[in-house]
Amino acid sequence: MTSKKVVELFYDVASPYSWLGFEVICRYRNVWNIDLKFRPAFLGGVMKGSGNKSPAMVQKKVLYMDKDLSRLRDYFNVPMQHPADPIGVIFNKGSLPAMRFLTAVQEREDGNTKVEQVSRELFLRIWNEDKDITEPGSLSEAAVKAGLSESEIKELLELYTSPKMKDKLRSTTQDALDYGAFGFPLLVCHVNSKAEVFFGSDRFELMAHCIGEKWLGPQPEK
Amino acid sequence: MTSKKVVELFYDVASPYSWLGFEVICRYRNVWNIDLKFRPAFLGGVMKGSGNKSPAMVQKKVLYMDKDLSRLRDYFNVPMQHPADPIGVIFNKGSLPAMRFLTAVQEREDGNTKVEQVSRELFLRIWNEDKDITEPGSLSEAAVKAGLSESEIKELLELYTSPKMKDKLRSTTQDALDYGAFGFPLLVCHVNSKAEVFFGSDRFELMAHCIGEKWLGPQPEK
Repeated sequence: MTSKKVVELFYDVASPYSWLGFEVICRYRNVWNIDLKFRPAFLGGVMKGSGNKSPAMVQKKVLYMDKDLSRLRDYFNVPMQHPADPIGVIFNKGSLPAMRFLTAVQEREDGNTKVEQVSRELFLRIWNEDKDITEPGSLSEAAVKAGLSESEIKELLELYTSPKMKDKLRSTTQDALDYGAFGFPLLVCHVNSKAEVFFGSDRFELMAHCIGEKWLGPQPEK
Repeated sequence: MTSKKVVELFYDVASPYSWLGFEVICRYRNVWNIDLKFRPAFLGGVMKGSGNKSPAMVQKKVLYMDKDLSRLRDYFNVPMQHPADPIGVIFNKGSLPAMRFLTAVQEREDGNTKVEQVSRELFLRIWNEDKDITEPGSLSEAAVKAGLSESEIKELLELYTSPKMKDKLRSTTQDALDYGAFGFPLLVCHVNSKAEVFFGSDRFELMAHCIGEKWLGPQPEK
């Protein structure tokens, strides 16, 4: 029996390309021989730590990204909608509370299911329903939809702003920087004791080739 | 009979991702129902005109690009090698004479063959052989390898620095900017009287889907 290849996914719910990458790798988890590790991290910290600037600084990039994301949304079949005020949502409000909350979900969980489901609900809130992801009430709503119990949510709300969770998120973000991140999603594949790093949601075909698996398009089970 | 879809390829030989995109679309020209138009343009003008900055400004991007290009080179089967001094080659020497020369090749040619072959020889000089592409002697060597005659080359060397060719290159570069370019390669697909614009050498699968063709990987005839 071949042991599974470990694939780490670094992502932030504020990043629409993260959502595309997240959904695609979740679909492949059952198709490829991989052990997927979710690494919720803070994109703001990666941008600062790498000295990278948001693509929103170049007007033509923003226009292209709009078009690119709409086409990818349809092709990848991910129900993405632009929030009415993307600058306010991404840059002013930001994703720090949401990523701390996910860090806490992962801390409390013995497994991957809850962090995946709460992540998806947070992606949906920001990139489909245009709802807040910074207030405790918003985080609770996402957790309820993800199927967490009232007592679990209560515990998470006490935990997510603790120094321990802040430190853990910082440390995950630092791990991403140590792998060379300058944006998200970042996929780190551990193959033959080597880490192969892929940036973006547009390297899956190349990644499949590098890890000895087959790319079957964004919807492998269709 | 369905008429062929027109696909314009804007590229600059100083851009390694342009070379990947150039080779892939050349391979698909005979597989897809497309009429490929080469649009040699000046990347420096596009960066300036769009206010975009080179990825070389962010150290982590440079390190990632190195790795990404090596992996893509193998997967795409394009014989790319890093020049010993990439900054000197790309930023200090630049590609303006080479792109003017290609503009002249296209001006003199009734067809696509010569501009394709001379482009490939120039890509090879910079990204495989680490040779100059700014001196008239260098441009001649590329043209000889591409199979152009002595008299054709003599004519091109008289033509390529003329105001007419400078203007033509500027105008092609402006066309790219008008399509929203902030880097190369840029592929513009004319489908149902609409222009669908794709940036980079990593959107071919999506592009195929949008123009009703099939993506068969970077080597469709293998």
